[in-house]
Amino acid sequence: MRAIILQDQLTFEPNYPKPAPSAGEAIVRVTCAGVCNTDIELQRGYFGFRGVPGHEFVGVIESISPYPNGSAQFAPADFKVGERVVGEINCVPCESNSRDYFERAQDPSRNTLGIDRRDGAFADFVSLPIANLLRVPANISDEEAVFVEPLAAACQILEQVHIKTTDRVVVLGDGKLGLLCAQVLATTGCHLTAVGKHANKLAILGQRGIHTMLVSEWVADYGSGARVADVVVECTGSPAGFETARRMLRPRGTLVLKSTYHGLPQVNLTMIVVDEISIVGSRCGPFDAALRLLAAKRIDVQSLIHARYPIEQGVQAFEHAQRAGVLKVLMQVEEK
Amino acid sequence: MRAIILQDQLTFEPNYPKPAPSAGEAIVRVTCAGVCNTDIELQRGYFGFRGVPGHEFVGVIESISPYPNGSAQFAPADFKVGERVVGEINCVPCESNSRDYFERAQDPSRNTLGIDRRDGAFADFVSLPIANLLRVPANISDEEAVFVEPLAAACQILEQVHIKTTDRVVVLGDGKLGLLCAQVLATTGCHLTAVGKHANKLAILGQRGIHTMLVSEWVADYGSGARVADVVVECTGSPAGFETARRMLRPRGTLVLKSTYHGLPQVNLTMIVVDEISIVGSRCGPFDAALRLLAAKRIDVQSLIHARYPIEQGVQAFEHAQRAGVLKVLMQVEEK
Repeated sequence: MRAIILQDQLTFEPNYPKPAPSAGEAIVRVTCAGVCNTDIELQRGYFGFRGVPGHEFVGVIESISPYPNGSAQFAPADFKVGERVVGEINCVPCESNSRDYFERAQDPSRNTLGIDRRDGAFADFVSLPIANLLRVPANISDEEAVFVEPLAAACQILEQVHIKTTDRVVVLGDGKLGLLCAQVLATTGCHLTAVGKHANKLAILGQRGIHTMLVSEWVADYGSGARVADVVVECTGSPAGFETARRMLRPRGTLVLKSTYHGLPQVNLTMIVVDEISIVGSRCGPFDAALRLLAAKRIDVQSLIHARYPIEQGVQAFEHAQRAGVLKVLMQVEEK
Repeated sequence: MRAIILQDQLTFEPNYPKPAPSAGEAIVRVTCAGVCNTDIELQRGYFGFRGVPGHEFVGVIESISPYPNGSAQFAPADFKVGERVVGEINCVPCESNSRDYFERAQDPSRNTLGIDRRDGAFADFVSLPIANLLRVPANISDEEAVFVEPLAAACQILEQVHIKTTDRVVVLGDGKLGLLCAQVLATTGCHLTAVGKHANKLAILGQRGIHTMLVSEWVADYGSGARVADVVVECTGSPAGFETARRMLRPRGTLVLKSTYHGLPQVNLTMIVVDEISIVGSRCGPFDAALRLLAAKRIDVQSLIHARYPIEQGVQAFEHAQRAGVLKVLMQVEEK
């Protein structure tokens, strides 16, 4: 099959071996996949991954290998060949009791699709545990469905923090994750402001009626130590963003940390104590919530798509995704 | 009056001016006061304070200056001359609406007893807003009452985090704050372990039936990355303690930060996200809760007292408090 593979460098491989069927797993024919910042980091060698990257995808079930006898106690609803699905990325053995997506993400026996010891979705076919699959409603397009994984991560904020309609919430950062988090938070009816450095990206939110400000406008209006927000969601990916977020928060406010950072940033822990700030680390999220929001047309992901490449040009897709100002780059795997 | 004063250095002053009565304030004759780590830091010049330090105290009301007309809307219960009281340390103007101790601690117009622009309690007399005073029940001794302020800070943990009886809780650090926090957490019936470096200090908790472990025992039993605790309360005052606490926590656990640190420690924020850790900064607390616990004899503070000095030897009291392994040093102000 065709695949993008990461060895010493990233290449297109026209004859990569198709994944073998495995008990309790399904082979999914990939139709479309998205390039994520994590993929770029894999390419840069940060996690030492070798194989097929890609974990944001949608596809159609090609074949199903039943659970072995006695281990189907947590078998999900019957899937059928031909159904369109997305898949959660953390995979555990079918005899594991890890039913929750966060439990799976912490299971020491897990591997992770296209990130850690499991070939991913930049290929014609991918194999995933049946328990990881979710059906995609018919009114969600393939291109929209590719966003389920990052949109689920944005939905995770609402699993962890009670956002009240009276809360003043700031989403800091206007990259892909920031734009998804802002749209998810807007569903709550809270007093929301998305703050970023790029007017063209913030405009995607402005068109949906979300209040936006450039960082420079925020500083001009409130000063750099305004401390007015009840909740700040840090999506910049920069340690400087963490400090900016802290300074926006009122005493006893909540800082939701969606970004990860390279290295060990210096943090003003004393002010966390003095202001009794809560910090909530937030990672993967519920796919079902993301699918509901997309099916209800409450989230615009189409505006985040900046380019599409056929899988044969997957290496160029990676290059495009790294250009300044570029949001989502898709890989069209199914031949049209 | 007699006072310990901090100018270029700390001295005993036999004829310091008695505080003048101020509207809405009471003059309290101090009977006993405690030396706190913050006092040591003031002496080292960290906050630039000049005047009388001391904010852990108990005393007797000497005189009361009524509120000015029209500003008594939040007047507390009538106090009488001769009543024994403790006092919250953050003081706001009597016309302020800040009724809550945390609101007062954040009020920009506040000053702070013995710490910031208000003479403190290492003196014969101290002046405090009536709104800051709380009566001391008769069955609490003067020496016990001196611990109300730090004990209230320990009680604040229960205001911020829901500690369940099934939670595995670790208090890390066996200094004064750690010993108080461990005793407060023990009231919840949770699965508590106090972890520290000093067997003699941990023994104070062991005598009260609290499970204790040396850090070395913890590492031997669980390894340095055990990740078993639902809640870890960081009381070491050391950035290394923060990292130790994080490694003790299970994924999705809660790290309560009671310590403040000098400088800006480096923090592994990425692991906070990956493990979805919550960090809760925790500072001053409710005096009334601390008084109830002391009145019910549920907290042993007597074992924490390592030395007593008359106010004339207050400078020596400061020296003693800085010796390795020393817990609370008291200043006996009232002449017996």
